[in-house]
Parts: sequence; structure tokens; C-alpha cells
Amino acid sequence: LWQRLGQQTKNGKTCSQCWVLFVSPAAERLRYILGDEDDAPTPTLFTEMDTLQHEGGELEWRESARWVKFEEKVEEGGERWSKPHVSTLSLHSLFELRTCLQTGSILLDLEGYSLPQIVGKCVEDGLLAPELREKVVFVLLRKHRHQTKKPIHRSLADIGKSSSTSESKTRRERLCSCVPDHSQSRSMNDISDAPSTDQLKNKFMKKIPRDAEASNVLVGEVDFLEKPFVAFVRLAQATTLGGLTEVPVPTRFLFVLLGPQGKSKSYNEIGRAIATLMVDDLFSDVAYKARDREDLIAGIDEFLDEVIVLPPGEWDPKIRIEPPKKVPSADMRKSVFSLNELGQMNGTAGGGGGSGESLDGRFCGGLFLDIKRKLPWLLSDFYDAFHIQSISAVLFIYLGCITNAITFGGLLGDATDNYQGVMESFLGTALAGVVFCCFGGQPLIILSSTGPILIFEKLLYEFSKSNSIDYMELRLWIGLHSCFQCLVLVATDASYIIKYITRFTEEGFSSLISFIFISDAIKKMHKSSACSGIESRTLPLTLLKLLECSESPGSSCNTSSFYKYTLNGTALDWSQLSKKECLKYGGSLVGNSCKYVPDLALMSFILFFGTYSMTITLKKFKFSRYFPTKLRKLISDFSIFMSIMTFVGLDMLMGLQTPKLIVPTEFKPTRSGRGWIVKPFGKNPWWMYLASFVPALLVTILIFMDQQISAVIVNRKENKLKKGCGYHLDLFWVGILMATCSFLGLPWYVAATVISIAHIDSLKMESESSAPGEQPQFLGVREQRLTGILVFVLTGVSIFLAPVLQFIPMPVLYGVFLYMGVASLGGIQFWDRIKLFLMPLKHQPDFTYLRHVPLRKVHLFTLVQIICLAVLWILKSTVAAIVFPVMILGLMVVRKMLDLVFSQHDLAWLDDILPEKDKKKKEDEKKKKDRKKSKGQDDDSNEEVRKMSLCTLIHREYPIPSFEPHAHD
Amino acid sequence: LWQRLGQQTKNGKTCSQCWVLFVSPAAERLRYILGDEDDAPTPTLFTEMDTLQHEGGELEWRESARWVKFEEKVEEGGERWSKPHVSTLSLHSLFELRTCLQTGSILLDLEGYSLPQIVGKCVEDGLLAPELREKVVFVLLRKHRHQTKKPIHRSLADIGKSSSTSESKTRRERLCSCVPDHSQSRSMNDISDAPSTDQLKNKFMKKIPRDAEASNVLVGEVDFLEKPFVAFVRLAQATTLGGLTEVPVPTRFLFVLLGPQGKSKSYNEIGRAIATLMVDDLFSDVAYKARDREDLIAGIDEFLDEVIVLPPGEWDPKIRIEPPKKVPSADMRKSVFSLNELGQMNGTAGGGGGSGESLDGRFCGGLFLDIKRKLPWLLSDFYDAFHIQSISAVLFIYLGCITNAITFGGLLGDATDNYQGVMESFLGTALAGVVFCCFGGQPLIILSSTGPILIFEKLLYEFSKSNSIDYMELRLWIGLHSCFQCLVLVATDASYIIKYITRFTEEGFSSLISFIFISDAIKKMHKSSACSGIESRTLPLTLLKLLECSESPGSSCNTSSFYKYTLNGTALDWSQLSKKECLKYGGSLVGNSCKYVPDLALMSFILFFGTYSMTITLKKFKFSRYFPTKLRKLISDFSIFMSIMTFVGLDMLMGLQTPKLIVPTEFKPTRSGRGWIVKPFGKNPWWMYLASFVPALLVTILIFMDQQISAVIVNRKENKLKKGCGYHLDLFWVGILMATCSFLGLPWYVAATVISIAHIDSLKMESESSAPGEQPQFLGVREQRLTGILVFVLTGVSIFLAPVLQFIPMPVLYGVFLYMGVASLGGIQFWDRIKLFLMPLKHQPDFTYLRHVPLRKVHLFTLVQIICLAVLWILKSTVAAIVFPVMILGLMVVRKMLDLVFSQHDLAWLDDILPEKDKKKKEDEKKKKDRKKSKGQDDDSNEEVRKMSLCTLIHREYPIPSFEPHAHD
Repeated sequence: LWQRLGQQTKNGKTCSQCWVLFVSPAAERLRYILGDEDDAPTPTLFTEMDTLQHEGGELEWRESARWVKFEEKVEEGGERWSKPHVSTLSLHSLFELRTCLQTGSILLDLEGYSLPQIVGKCVEDGLLAPELREKVVFVLLRKHRHQTKKPIHRSLADIGKSSSTSESKTRRERLCSCVPDHSQSRSMNDISDAPSTDQLKNKFMKKIPRDAEASNVLVGEVDFLEKPFVAFVRLAQATTLGGLTEVPVPTRFLFVLLGPQGKSKSYNEIGRAIATLMVDDLFSDVAYKARDREDLIAGIDEFLDEVIVLPPGEWDPKIRIEPPKKVPSADMRKSVFSLNELGQMNGTAGGGGGSGESLDGRFCGGLFLDIKRKLPWLLSDFYDAFHIQSISAVLFIYLGCITNAITFGGLLGDATDNYQGVMESFLGTALAGVVFCCFGGQPLIILSSTGPILIFEKLLYEFSKSNSIDYMELRLWIGLHSCFQCLVLVATDASYIIKYITRFTEEGFSSLISFIFISDAIKKMHKSSACSGIESRTLPLTLLKLLECSESPGSSCNTSSFYKYTLNGTALDWSQLSKKECLKYGGSLVGNSCKYVPDLALMSFILFFGTYSMTITLKKFKFSRYFPTKLRKLISDFSIFMSIMTFVGLDMLMGLQTPKLIVPTEFKPTRSGRGWIVKPFGKNPWWMYLASFVPALLVTILIFMDQQISAVIVNRKENKLKKGCGYHLDLFWVGILMATCSFLGLPWYVAATVISIAHIDSLKMESESSAPGEQPQFLGVREQRLTGILVFVLTGVSIFLAPVLQFIPMPVLYGVFLYMGVASLGGIQFWDRIKLFLMPLKHQPDFTYLRHVPLRKVHLFTLVQIICLAVLWILKSTVAAIVFPVMILGLMVVRKMLDLVFSQHDLAWLDDILPEKDKKKKEDEKKKKDRKKSKGQDDDSNEEVRKMSLCTLIHREYPIPSFEPHAHD
Repeated sequence: LWQRLGQQTKNGKTCSQCWVLFVSPAAERLRYILGDEDDAPTPTLFTEMDTLQHEGGELEWRESARWVKFEEKVEEGGERWSKPHVSTLSLHSLFELRTCLQTGSILLDLEGYSLPQIVGKCVEDGLLAPELREKVVFVLLRKHRHQTKKPIHRSLADIGKSSSTSESKTRRERLCSCVPDHSQSRSMNDISDAPSTDQLKNKFMKKIPRDAEASNVLVGEVDFLEKPFVAFVRLAQATTLGGLTEVPVPTRFLFVLLGPQGKSKSYNEIGRAIATLMVDDLFSDVAYKARDREDLIAGIDEFLDEVIVLPPGEWDPKIRIEPPKKVPSADMRKSVFSLNELGQMNGTAGGGGGSGESLDGRFCGGLFLDIKRKLPWLLSDFYDAFHIQSISAVLFIYLGCITNAITFGGLLGDATDNYQGVMESFLGTALAGVVFCCFGGQPLIILSSTGPILIFEKLLYEFSKSNSIDYMELRLWIGLHSCFQCLVLVATDASYIIKYITRFTEEGFSSLISFIFISDAIKKMHKSSACSGIESRTLPLTLLKLLECSESPGSSCNTSSFYKYTLNGTALDWSQLSKKECLKYGGSLVGNSCKYVPDLALMSFILFFGTYSMTITLKKFKFSRYFPTKLRKLISDFSIFMSIMTFVGLDMLMGLQTPKLIVPTEFKPTRSGRGWIVKPFGKNPWWMYLASFVPALLVTILIFMDQQISAVIVNRKENKLKKGCGYHLDLFWVGILMATCSFLGLPWYVAATVISIAHIDSLKMESESSAPGEQPQFLGVREQRLTGILVFVLTGVSIFLAPVLQFIPMPVLYGVFLYMGVASLGGIQFWDRIKLFLMPLKHQPDFTYLRHVPLRKVHLFTLVQIICLAVLWILKSTVAAIVFPVMILGLMVVRKMLDLVFSQHDLAWLDDILPEKDKKKKEDEKKKKDRKKSKGQDDDSNEEVRKMSLCTLIHREYPIPSFEPHAHD
């Protein structure tokens, strides 16, 4: 036995050596041919595979599959293209293909202008017995039928066309013409140089890049051959070879495999293998640049070296694998072969998208940098807006803005005895918005009144009133001080603090704001439907009837419980009225008016939830299978507009007096006493002008925090913004607008988180999927100033749009609000982590951070966030709400303390690293890596290891094959 | 160049030959070792891979991955197991592994009882320099840390335990003990024979089959080796080697790879490769039966031959592939190596599940066969019911049945002046149901009154009344005749006709019935809420108020439109009343009673849609990620019960007088005049007894068609019923019950499609997924008689359950009805095909029939079905509804005509083949196949071709490598 084993070992060694033999030089070859960096990139290849078919006694080539990036197969029975899928190959076919290329004809840079000439040269290449050549040529020149076409019945007029067009016959071509004419002419009815109309009409063309070239794979079995005939041709010039390809794309490569009968399945697989190779980024490069047969073989070996193998027992080969969301980039793979290229790539990856906070200490350094960053984009800030999506975005955000303006306007009016009312709110929103969108650092941010400012105004007005101070003048001075403070913050580059706003703070803040939005929408909704009932004084009528009824035995309980049901919130108050009160109150109203309150409430809720759920549904419609992609995208983009229209229409149809949107129609201050300009002096004592510095400080902090965190959320990496941020510039304009608004007696404005997120969401771009099966990628956001400007201009002219706007019921707008709130919660990791609490371990999704951070740590982190959120929620419900943005500072402090509990490694996965820790972290990582390397631990950062192992495997000998069998005892 | 090419070709040939060399004999070897059929099946293997780690200066083995069927990796950072995924390997690692096995120590059937002894034998095998042996042993005996455990701090008391337990030291063992004692003892602290408590407590154990054995893979890098040390050990007896494995499973295989430092990634990959191989069904067989090294190599080669290769440019290796729904069975793969086994399999596949219609021409042949088929299951028909699922099924179907009984009872009462009322309906349902479920051929079928019978009764009663014929006596005679006719049909095996009921007819019929169910549910719902209003006479009150109001200016329009809104259906009638009429009618009622009709309606709709949507949602909950699997399954099983309870609770809480379920509480005939037995003679003239043969014929056709098509739908292949069908036996009992019910004056009963489908759906079984990642498979249905019997017994005693049942509001039950209707539409191919109309070609799902049938044909087929459905729907809405079941015959005729339009090939994919065409089809197929083979077309039936190609490739030489390079010109 030992003897035998020894022998076997030696055998094995031979084999493994031969494997090493053909792997090791492969990389060397590839490095040589792919190493040149200054080469132009090779064109994309479109590959078509045709198989030889006997159709009614005649031979013809029929298209059986095609590849742009993924495989599409012709479903023979279904007469259709399959879905694009990943080409699953068998190892066999790849090795067979390798052998084919080793033994077949390889014609590189062949000068050929027509198929007959090329085919002639192929057979002439010497590997075929002369008597078979004619037959092979005959077979290869049979007509091609493509999946898109009906059977071709072309006239004989086309015959011989090609021979007249290609004038310059070379020596080789003449050699080829020794093939008898009859076979050639009979086969030429589909082979002409000019693209046929069928080809030109093919809609598939738009899926193929413009500069693409074709590679044609022809496989088939014939009865006259005893040994396979294989040819691989690369043309010197890509040439359109008549009806060879389904689309009018010039052919560059040609692979022919004709073999004896009985192995069609095997030939097919080989054809699929070469086709798959031809569309492989790396191999197609090799194919373009190969100098000889060995380069091609090296390309295959390199391909084999990278293939992913699925064990037969764990996967069903019949499953067609859907194209993945992302595939490794070709550059990454190619970079192995040119080391300096790799360095470059790393360099660029580190660049762009930084927050641009280079603290150079210069006065206003950050502001100038922001302007410098923004200036080059000025023109594109306008022309980038020209897309239909922008219209939808404008309508959506416009409706959000006016709803907000009306709400805050109404509240401000209540709080300040109409010193600032709805009119001022509209005007201020328009003014501030237009200015900010025109000149701001991040024009995607939408300015709006916010809760804290509202509370501040309220407190300020009450203070002024009780102390007999002129409110408007005091407010003006606070505004001026605050503006000055903002400018100081700009000049001192104080926005550097945003570095400390990590995902933890972001998520906490934006979740909270979203919650407030949602709860506000529902509260307003409830209030409005309740209010409208009370105002129209019909509620007592109903109540009267109910109370009347309750005297009849047996039904009192029912009626009251019903009552509770339909008007749950306000039911208590009304039911506490005595019957007499009610009778007195209601009795006088019988017959006066009879709007049906409970049903107004029902109708309102239908409008509210209808708008919300229709928007959500239509938004998701993009991912359904129905209707063409473009239509779906349009529906999805205009989902909000369509929902609003639908429910406005429903409301009009019903004709119920639901509460409607009422905008001011006359251009004058809400409070008749005040003018449009606030005079700075005269009404308050002089020391007030200085003392107002103190409250201004609070306002400044409010504005600074609110503005910057919203800006951080808008600028976050996930949004892939390309034009950079401008925190300093943003703050500068917010400051300036503060002063302006104070002079005009308009409310103060600051970035509104939820509406800004909605703005970004409505402007997201996706790549048009180019190759069939390729997933559209999120490209970024239409960064421009035009949508914002339009929104605010529209807001400004809303006063004149009143006749149109009055048809919009408020519940519909509250539905839009609800949608905004819910939508802005989407895509927040925090929510994913909360859901983890409810999932058993094994059902948890495969989030990356779960691979690297222990679950208990993840849960702890989430719990801290939940507690913070709860505390913030409680705070904002009290009067402490005024210091609410300051709470963000609290969040940042909590985050800082988390450094004590969590390791930097865990925080890097769950959150971001704080600035000063950043350096430490990097050092730690480095150390760890070193230790890991020495320990030889399994590292998950595949990229690096993969490259390492590839290099190792290719440049050194195999680790295992190199060791020699030990001698026996 | 030519010279060079030639040379390269030769080189290539060497290589390809070497590849052929090691593939060809592989299959021969495998055929030899796997060919024995009478071998016991090899145990399942559990594989654990441990890697060597340096932890605080100490070496230890740490578990890094495990395989039951799919791979689970230890997430180092996350301290958790990854999700089970398909092991994606690199080709490299497989070739490296192959080399390892070629050069390393292979110890097969080693006698070993403890790890030190086994390790000793490994190093002793001679491939290692003597000075290294000690070190290798030391490393290999380091303790093992498993993912489930915290770091092990075991006392030194365990030291040397194993050396005392293993008494019988063989010569070899003594040889091994030449390794110094200190190293051994230091390493033994985790190596004992008895399974540790950690092992025994491991919950993972239940995921591993009982007879499983373990294979342990140990890989690591050490500093003292310059060449890798590889050992593959198969123990003669599977032995528990202390803490080696995480679970107390005896180890059979051991693979050790220790190598020089710097290549840990590569060693890991090799470890993963051997681990994946060990859990491969085919390779594990080979590993168990291998006689020598070459057998193992042959196993790898065979594995390589079957692997699926993904091109690197089309797939990201970082993606963890989820386990597929189904993997090719191991038997299929093994069958290649034993041809007679394959034959057997084909034989059995053709058997079971046939409809058992062997027309042997004997009298009652079919009936006897049915009984013969059913008898052996008699006992299991009862004990199979013992599962918690059955309780849910009983409750669900019970509620469906009593709702049906009440509805039909009420309608029958109206139609026959209470000759048959709700009481009779309950009694009849209970009687017929119990008898049928006890003795019927398919006890899963639920009997119920159906629409056509109701119409027949109505017509019959009207006819009797107008012609002064005694209805009950006439009905008795019709029943008797019909019973006789049924028995004749049974005796003549007329149920053979079901062979002609294909998917086309089935889908048409069941869709229609589902539609009727849905529309009935909604109609009843509407009627009940409208009725309750009218009955309690409060509607006029509301109307009165509204009309009063309409006199006040400006609000008339609103009120009327509101009115339309809340009571859309009946609004017209009421609004057509003049104001005076209304006043007169309504005026007298003011103050009398004041149930709030519109809100009763609202409440009813809330209960109705609430029950429906909660059921749907909970049913789907099984597929969510939240909560443990078992809880989810329970919730899903009891979804209907939970929904009903919730909404009954809500209704009670609201205390509204929604229409409730009212069952008769006294046991007496509904019509006071009639007794419990109908006398056959005396009231009608004698010729009536004969003449009733004619209407009986209609009833018989009604019953036969209705019964059989429902039975076909219940018995359809997708339900995977194991106990066979019994069409003749079913019909026999339906006939007998017909006569019995006629005597007792109870309604007639026949199989109810929708409730039967609901019954089956609520009894579906799924396999408990065994290996992690394996998808649960649909196993079949709990086929038993007990649930049916219980349902009908409960129906019978419902009279005594009235106090409980009266709390159930009818809208809730209608919600259950709606759910039944919608649920029975699920999984019908027809719907998938209708959806195709709305989808653009490229977004259509990859249905198998779309691969084989052109889309226009699919659309045409669907269109025919839609038209048939529409015609049926129209027919059933008219009085023609009485011949409704006869329409099924119409459907079957249409199906027959489709044979003229569609090819048999298309119909085979879209539908089933009709009996006489069956043979033709087979012949056609055969012919086609022959032609295809000769044409060398790509055949989609991979299975066959795959096997063929495997055999071809393995037994013959490679097709391509075999041809020799031609001489140059």
C-alpha cells in the first residue's frame, strides 16, 4: 500500500505542477499586456451566441443567447428572451474551452471586411483537411435568424452584394475565393455590409453602449466532421458583417466551434463559456490586447483563478441567479496587474465628499472656502434642475411649505396678537426661502419657522406686554444682535462643531423631529375636524337628539358609547354637560343648520388617511412589476401630486364642508396697526438695545443648532451630494435673513429638517440601468437652486392663487404632513436596530454591523438612543421646549460619554468616530492589523486579503504544492 | 509564430491530458465503491472547523465555522453565528486541497479511542521530521473553544483523565507515547471521553440528525514548520473525543492542516473546502467507503466535475448566498453510479397519487377499489388528527359551517314557507357532515347546501303550491330517485368523467365559486347593516331630520350627498319618497327608538373589514422575521380565531346592537305543521312517484357535477394528498344522504368548494427545517376524519351553544366568509396569468410555462378562461343558475375545443392533457425528442442531459481534448 501511495503522490505532483505551470506565468503575461496604463479603455463587448439548427431540411444559425453584461437566453418554446441572469457555467466547459483555444485556430488582428472573406481565412488556417474546408465554409455562411425577427424571406437581390462592396481584395482573400462560388452565393442572402432594417429597428440597441463592439459565438454540430473545428478571430478593425449580429454593432471577435454530432449540449456549454468570458471585464481586455494564443490562455487561467464555486449539493444548477445589486468593479480586478494604478485609486477614494472643515485659522476662512467651493457650480445649479422630477418636487415641497406657513402663521398670530400673522408668515417664508436658495451654501435646505422659535416669540410677547415694552422694537434688536452673533460664529469657523454631530445625534434628532411631525399631523387633523364641528354649531344638535333619545329605555348606553366612539377626544367635555344645558344650547339651533358633524369627521379621516396611504402606495409602485418602468417612475415621482388631486376631487364630489385651506388674499399686515417696516429707535428705553444681547444669545444658540444639525442631515454621506456643503455660508445667510426679517417684522427662519429631507427625497436620481439585468444605482440628488427658488416664489404668489387653493381640504394637507414625517423616518439605522429587539437571533437580517459588533452591544447602543429620545420627547412637551435645540448639545455630550462604554471599534460600526478619537482609532486599527497579521487571524475585509492572496498565489509558488513528500519510515 | 503556436499547442495538450487522466478513472472508482446497493446509508456528517489562535500568548483552537448542510461562520466581532449560507469556494482552494490529499497522510479506518492516541498515529505516519513531531502533537492537543462557550477555565483536575480511561494500549499507541509526557498532559485539560456539560447543554444538538457523526477540520499556522503538515483520518469507530466538537457527536473524520506562517487565509479556505466536501452527500459517501487515497481524490474530482461556476465579473464573492428552496437530491446524483437504482426510481415516480380510475368493467369496481384504498388508513384517519393545528381548523370551519347553515336555512325558510328552515339546516348539516366525514372517500370535503339546490327547492315549492301538490312528499320521491340514479352512476364508474376535468375547468369553477363567495359576503354584509336599520325603524328618523333640514337654504345638497355616501345602495329608494310620506312615516317615530343607523353601518363595516384584514395580516405573519418561529406558526394557525375573538370583543366593548348570530334554541321543526319524518305515500297521486324521476335527473346532474369538481379541486396534485381519493365512495354517500335527508325533510347536501379548500388550507403541514438554512417543505395535509366530524358534531350541538354564539356579530362572520373566498383564490395559476397582461415583457416573473409557451398563446388561453368566467357569472345571475353545475360540462366542452387551437405541447404546460390525447402526446414528445437529438437542439430538461453529459464526459475521453492538432500548411 505504501508503495502505491507513494506512486500516487508522485502522479499527483505531476498534475499539481502542471496546474502551477499554467497559473504562474499567466499573471506575468497579463501584467505585461494589461500593465500599460495609457492605453485607451477597450470598448464594451456585446456577445451573441448562435447555434446551428436544421429547419425544414435547411441549415441556419439561430440566436440562442446574448450577453451585454448578464446572460439572456432564448426560450425556445416561449419564443422570448429569458430574464437576464448570472451565467452559471460548469467547470468542464471552461476546461474544454481552454483546450479548444489551445488547439484551434487563433487569428489575431485579421484584416477582414466581409464574412465570406473572414471565414475563408479561418478554414485556410491549416487545421482542417482540404476536402472539409468547403463544407465548413458552406455551413458558416448559412443565414442567421435572430430572436427579434420573424423568419427571413429576403429576396435574392441581396446576393453577392457584399462581394461588390469590398473592393480591395488582398492576396488572402483571393485564396479564400478558391471556395466554389455556388456555396458562397447560396449562403449570402443574409450577409451584407449595410445594417438591415431589422437590425436598425431593434430596440435592444439602446441597452448597448454607443462604442460597443460585438463578439459572435457560433457553435453547432455537423455530420461531416470527425474532429471539432475551432477558430477564434480578432479583426483588426471592427466591421459590420451583415446580418450576423442582431443589432447594427460592428463585430470584433468571432468564435467558431463546429464539431461532430451528438455533443450539442457540450458545444453549447463551451459557447456559453467563451461568451461569458468575452463580456468579462478582465478577459475582454486580455482579448483585445492579446499578442498570441498563450495570452488568451493566460486570460482564461486568470478567470479560473477568480471564479466562485458553488458546491453541487448546496445549489441547484437549474436556478437562474438574479443579477446582484453590485458587482466588483473591473478596475479593482485590473488593479492587481498595475500596482501604481491601485495607489491612485486609494488616493481618490480618500478625497471628495469631506465636510471641508480645514481650520486654517484665517478670519472667515471657512466662509471663503464655502464660497470658493460653491462658485464653480453656480451655472449648473440652475440647468441641473431641468427634469420632470423637479416639477413634482416643487409641487410637493410647495404644498408642505404653505401648510407650514399657515400653521405657524396661525399659531404666531395667536401668540403675538397678530403682530405676526399668516400674511407675515407667507411673506417671510417666501423672502427668506428665495434668498437662501439663491445664495445659501446648501440650497437643498428648506427654511421654515420651527417650534422653538415659536415658543420664544410667545414668551417674548408676553414679557413685552406685561412690562409695557414695545414688542416689535425689542424683537428687532434681538434679531440684530443675533445676526451679529451668527456672523461672529461664521467668522470664527464655529461650524467646526458639526464634526461632533455623529450618526447617534443625527438619528436622535431626526427621529424626534419626524415624531413631532407625525404627532402634529394627527393632532392638527383631530383638532381641525373637532373644531369645524364646534364652529358650525351642529354638534349640540346631534347631542340634543342623543340626549332626547337617552330618555327612552334601553338605548342610552348605546348612544353614549357611540358618541364616544366617533368623537373620542372631545366626548368627555360634552357628555359632562347636563341635559338642560344641552337642551338650551342645542334647542335654539334645531333647524338652523344641519351639517352632519360625525360624518364630516369621518370624511376628514378618509381624506387624511387616504392621502397618506395612497401616497405611500404609489411611492412603492416603482418597485412593482406592472406597467413599463418609465410610467412607474413617473407615477412614483408624482405620487403626492396624484394623491392630493384624487382626494381634493373626492372632496369636491362629496361637497362636504370639510375645513379648507384659506390663504390671505390681500397684501397687508395682519394687524392693522403695524406697517411693513419696524423702526429701530424711539419706543423702548436705550438700555434695552444693549440688554437684548442676552435673549439674542439664546436665539443664536437655537438657530445655530437647529440650522447645523439639519444641514448635517441633509449633507449626510448616504445622499451622495457632489457639490459639497457650506455650513458657514448657510449660517451667514441665516444671520443676514434674521436681521432683514426683524426689520420687516416677519418671523425668523431656520432650516426645517423634515421638509428638507422630503426635498432631497423628491430629487433623488437613479441610473438608467444600461445592461439588461443591471440594477439601477442611486446616483445622488439633483443638487440645484431652482426647485427651492420656485417653491418660495410660489409661496409668495400664493396670495393670488387663493381661488385655486381654497379647494384643498386641510385633512389632505395633514395627510401630506403625515407622509413627510413617516418618509423621513425611512432609511434610519436606528429603526433597524429597534426591530432587532423583536427578532430571534437566527432571523435577524445580515447587517454588516451585526457581523462585527456583539448583539448585546448593539442593543445597549439602541437602548441609549431610545432613552435619549424619550427624554427629549418629554422635554419638548414642557415649556423647556425653548431650549430644545440645545438638547442636541446634550445628545452630543451623551455620545461623548459613550466613548467610555463602547470600544472605538464598536462605535465605528454603529456610529462615527469623534474627531480626536479618529487618530487614535486609526492607530489602534493599525496596531490591531499588525497583530492580526502576525496571529494569522481570519480578516473579514475581503478586499485586501483577496488581493493579497491573489498576488501571493500568482507570484509565488503554491503554498501546498511546493512541499515534497517525505520519505517513508 | 506558427512554430511557437504549435509548441504551445503541444504544451496545452500535456496539460489537458493530465486533466483527463485524473478525471476519467475517477468515475470508474466511484462506481466501484458506491455501486453496492445493499450498503446501509452512511450517517449524516456534522463538520466543525477550528482554527489555531494565539490568545494571550497561549495557543488554542477556536471554532470558526460549522456545517450541517450549509455553512455557518463565526462572526469574530459579532460573537455570533452567521446566517446559514451556501459555501462559496474558490477554485484555488479546491485544487490546493486536492494536492493536500495527494501528499499528506491518509489514515483510513484508524483504531483510535482518544485524541492523543490518534494525533500520535498521525504524526507517526512518517511524513514529518522526527524533531517536529513533538511540537505538532503539542499544538494539536491544545484545548478547543467553541462559539457557544465562554472561555474555558477548567480545573487541572481533568488533567490526565483520558490517559487513565483508555486502558487497552495497543502497540501503536505505545509508540505514540514516546512523545514526552509533559506536552501531552499540558494539553489534555479539555480532552476527555465523556461529553462535557457544555456539549450536552448545547441546543444546537436538535438541529443535527440523531445518527450523525462529526468530522473535525483543524487548520492553523505555526512558526516551527517549513512545509505544511496534512493528515486525513477516518476512524474505524466513531468516537467522542472530549471537547473536540461543540456537540456530543462522535467524531469519524479528522482533517488537520498545519502550515508555515503567513498563509492563514489560504489554509482557512482549504479548511472550508474540505468541510464543504465532507457535508456533500456524494463525497461523504466516498469518504466513508474509500479504500485508499485515490478514492478520495476521485471523490474530489467528481465533486469538481459537478460544481457550478460563477464568473467573477457577474457576481460579488462577498455576497453570502441564501440557501435555495430546493437542492438536487443526493439520490439523483448518486444514481449515476448505479444504473439499476435509477431505473427503480423512475418506476416509483410514475406510481402514487393517481386517481385510481382503473376501469376494469366490474360492477361497482370503482367503489370497491375506493374502499380497498381507504380501509388501510382507517386508524390513522383518527390519530393523525392529534395536533394543535386541528383545533384551529375545527373552529374555523365550524364558524364557516354555521354561518352557511344559518344563511341557507334562512333562505330556504323564505323559499319554502319554513318547510325547511334554520333548524332543519343545522340538523341536516350536522347529520350529513358526520356521516360523510365518517365514511366518505375524501373526508376533507365539507358538505353544505349550495346555490343551485336552493333555486331548485324554490322552484319546486312554487310549482307544488300552485298545483296543490304536497311539497314534502314530492321532494321525498325526487330524493329517492336521485339517490337511485347516484347509485347507478357509482355502479357504472361514471366518475371516470373527472379525467376530463383539467386545470382549465378547475380554475374556472373555483374562481367563480370564490367570486360568488366574496360577492355574497359583501352583499350579505350590506343587506344586514341596511336591514337592521330598517327593522329597527330608525332610518326614517334620520331621513326625517335630513328632509327637514333640506328646507333651510344652502345645505340641502350636502345632506343628500352625505346620505348617498353612507347608505349608497338603498339611498335611491328612500330619496324617492316624497317629503310628506317621509314625515308621516318618520314623524310618528320620533323619540320612540333611536339606534344610530349610519354608525351601526360604519361599525358593521369596521367589524367586517377588520376581521378580514386582521386574518389576512396574521396569516402572513408566519413569514415575518419577528418572534420565534413556533410562536409565529401558532399565530398564523390561529389567525382566524384570534381575529374573531378580537372583533367580537370590540363589538361587546362598543355595545352597539349590531346584527348578531341567532341560532334556534329549541329542538323542533321550523314549521309547526310538519313532523320529523316525511311519509312517502298518501298525499300525492301515484303517477307522481314515477314522474318525479324527471326532476330527479336534473338534481342528480347538479349533485354529480358539483360534488365531483369539488372533489377534484380538493384532490389536486398540489395538495400532496397521500391517502388517495374516493370519487365513487363520495358519490355513494352523497346519494345515500340524499335519500335520508328527503325522509327527514332536511335540505340536500353536496361538497362545498370554498369551505373544503379552507379546510385543507387550515390543515397544511410543513416540515420542521432540520439543517440550519434548509427551507421548510410543504409536506401535505393532515388527512383525517376527526376535524370534519368534530365540526359537524359542534354544528349539531350549536342549538345548546346559543348563549355563547349570540355574542358573535354577523359582520364578523361575513368577514370570515370574505377571507375564505379570497384565500381560496390564492395559488391559482389563472391569476398569475391575468397579472401578466399588465406586466411588460421583461418584468414578467420566470414562470416555467413562459419558458415553453409563447406569450401570445398564454394570453389567448387566459382570455378564453376570462370569457368563460364572465359567461358563467352572467348565467348564474339569471334563473339559469339552476343548471349552473351543468355549465361545468360546458367548460369541459370548451376545453375540448381548445385542442383544436392549441398544440398539445402548449396545453401540457398551461393545462393538463385530456385522456385520449395523452397517448398521442407521449408519442409526439418521443418523436420530437428524437428529432431534437438529431438536430442537436438545446434541450431544457437539464436532468437528462446533465446525466448524459456526465457519463459521456467521465467514461469517454473528453470530446475536445481528444482531437489532435492538424499539420500546418
